[in-house]
Amino acid sequence: MSEQPGRIMAGEMAEQPAVLRRILDRGAPAIREVARAVAARGPRFVLLTARGTSDNAALYAKYLLEIRRGLPCGLTSMSTTTAYGARPDLTDVLVIAVSQSGGSPDLVASTEAARGAGAVTLAVTNNADSPLAEVSEYHIDILAGPEKALPATKTYTASLLALYLFVEGLGGDGEGTAARVLPELADRILQRRAEVRALAARYRFAERMVITSRGYGYPTAKEAALKLMETSYIPALAYSGADLLHGPLAMVDNISPVIAVVPDGKGGEALQPVLDRLRGRGADLMVVGPRAQVAAASAGFVLPTDGLGEELQPVLEILPLQLLAYEVTIARGQDPDAPRALAKVTETR
Amino acid sequence: MSEQPGRIMAGEMAEQPAVLRRILDRGAPAIREVARAVAARGPRFVLLTARGTSDNAALYAKYLLEIRRGLPCGLTSMSTTTAYGARPDLTDVLVIAVSQSGGSPDLVASTEAARGAGAVTLAVTNNADSPLAEVSEYHIDILAGPEKALPATKTYTASLLALYLFVEGLGGDGEGTAARVLPELADRILQRRAEVRALAARYRFAERMVITSRGYGYPTAKEAALKLMETSYIPALAYSGADLLHGPLAMVDNISPVIAVVPDGKGGEALQPVLDRLRGRGADLMVVGPRAQVAAASAGFVLPTDGLGEELQPVLEILPLQLLAYEVTIARGQDPDAPRALAKVTETR
Repeated sequence: MSEQPGRIMAGEMAEQPAVLRRILDRGAPAIREVARAVAARGPRFVLLTARGTSDNAALYAKYLLEIRRGLPCGLTSMSTTTAYGARPDLTDVLVIAVSQSGGSPDLVASTEAARGAGAVTLAVTNNADSPLAEVSEYHIDILAGPEKALPATKTYTASLLALYLFVEGLGGDGEGTAARVLPELADRILQRRAEVRALAARYRFAERMVITSRGYGYPTAKEAALKLMETSYIPALAYSGADLLHGPLAMVDNISPVIAVVPDGKGGEALQPVLDRLRGRGADLMVVGPRAQVAAASAGFVLPTDGLGEELQPVLEILPLQLLAYEVTIARGQDPDAPRALAKVTETR
Repeated sequence: MSEQPGRIMAGEMAEQPAVLRRILDRGAPAIREVARAVAARGPRFVLLTARGTSDNAALYAKYLLEIRRGLPCGLTSMSTTTAYGARPDLTDVLVIAVSQSGGSPDLVASTEAARGAGAVTLAVTNNADSPLAEVSEYHIDILAGPEKALPATKTYTASLLALYLFVEGLGGDGEGTAARVLPELADRILQRRAEVRALAARYRFAERMVITSRGYGYPTAKEAALKLMETSYIPALAYSGADLLHGPLAMVDNISPVIAVVPDGKGGEALQPVLDRLRGRGADLMVVGPRAQVAAASAGFVLPTDGLGEELQPVLEILPLQLLAYEVTIARGQDPDAPRALAKVTETR
């Protein structure tokens, strides 16, 4: 354990408002250019490839592409290419590979294969000199600066914003004006660490957790579960609200705390019957979302959105949950900087 | 609790060899015809839509379609259509909706919307008179007979086989000759209930489980986790082997038992480094797979495959894991027929 447990992760979480500002100020023009070039190729279908935290960013991009661009999307099962040698015809297909390091050999191999099969390839990474950026036709740099902590935080929010700007750019709007309030709102959320510390006390002895959301908030639920597991080792199961009703609900009772990410918008409305059902079962429910939803729950964190569109809320929603994973881990006497068994670049093949 | 806990689930598991035989004998010609008609439409992309157990069957179909037909695939996020009103252009897209009941309103609505948006639509259900079959252009009946137990078993293996025959048919081979050994092999596996009961004793007091696999075996891992959760309420986390190395591995130690589904083929080979890593960490590892893999693990169930291709093994792999979920639940004094909180047709919208 380092002398100050969690020092590196805490520092990187705190950098997020500055990283978001950097993307908006310095990254946006290049992203707009990439979007214009890709749009000119007229992709009709999008495949997204990623693992771990980047996979949750890719899922966010899937919602954006389907809802805002009307482009049908799929998430790649990499082994079909790397283990089974599948060679689908990828004419008219845009393949987006998301990876903070840009170094995973299987991602590089599958992106190279996709390019060979006719796809337009785009890498979204935090390393412009990486092998993944090298083999891809287009590259977006998320400009998050070196990430040293094993649990990824700033590269996640940076990926979300970069992907948002890309998808807006695909539709001809590369200004991303709506996103300009994000750094300030992110800063306000990150100031509320003491509030999250109080929430963390609830979970110090939790043996498992369920995290749910719907629509744009679902990638947040998945990323929050991953963050909790890789820092505190609490088994955290993420389900879309609809899937939760299809089986895993049997597992939820008043000894399994539930965290619901409630988007302020249509995703939140679609989640409402699930929240009612959970309350009816007496579940211990913590909400990240609008004030009224927090008031109706056992506990929560009111997310300031100032009228921000639902599609940009995920950049903020994850922040209190990153802090929560951090604080729960500290409360359990562990070091969030040094999870057991993890390496920063995972060399799956 | 019913007088004989688990009687209904046990009966339906036992029916599986007969259901597989029925599909091969009576269902195959109709499936072949549907496949021929769909192939004539020349789809270039496939979107699969399902929830719960059917979603795991859809994931199996995704591997088959990508590897054996070279068709890029995606799994649908239904809320993009039902909550956000996304209307993607689905020309040249085949949309496959899998649902045992064919009754989920959101599935019906999203399939109807897909058909309106230009997709070729195919419903795979256990009810030819269902609303889903009604709104879809094509329909495949999985012929499993009424399923009364809340945990789906026979409709899962029936969906896998029907989807296999469909995908083979798409490629011009609708005979499915390789599948003809399945009923006999399934029967041999289901006879070994006492062996599974002994394995179940290991997990009676487990507080969580991790289930992993890769490639064709990954849908089995997900379905096994769902089955364990909805019957025994043990939080069971399913990861592809590659994803496991990207974070959740921190959570695995000698108090979290791991079940690995090891396909006899390329998926199993790709899983090997993960198995080595788990053994290196001292994980309690149970294997479902070839004899040599079981011998190298803490415990296991040797899967008889008699040279069966890897793409058909999932129909068998799930059987000992269905039995395991059942036996663990009985050992814990619960009733597998009546999980808390579940309804057979889940009415998410």
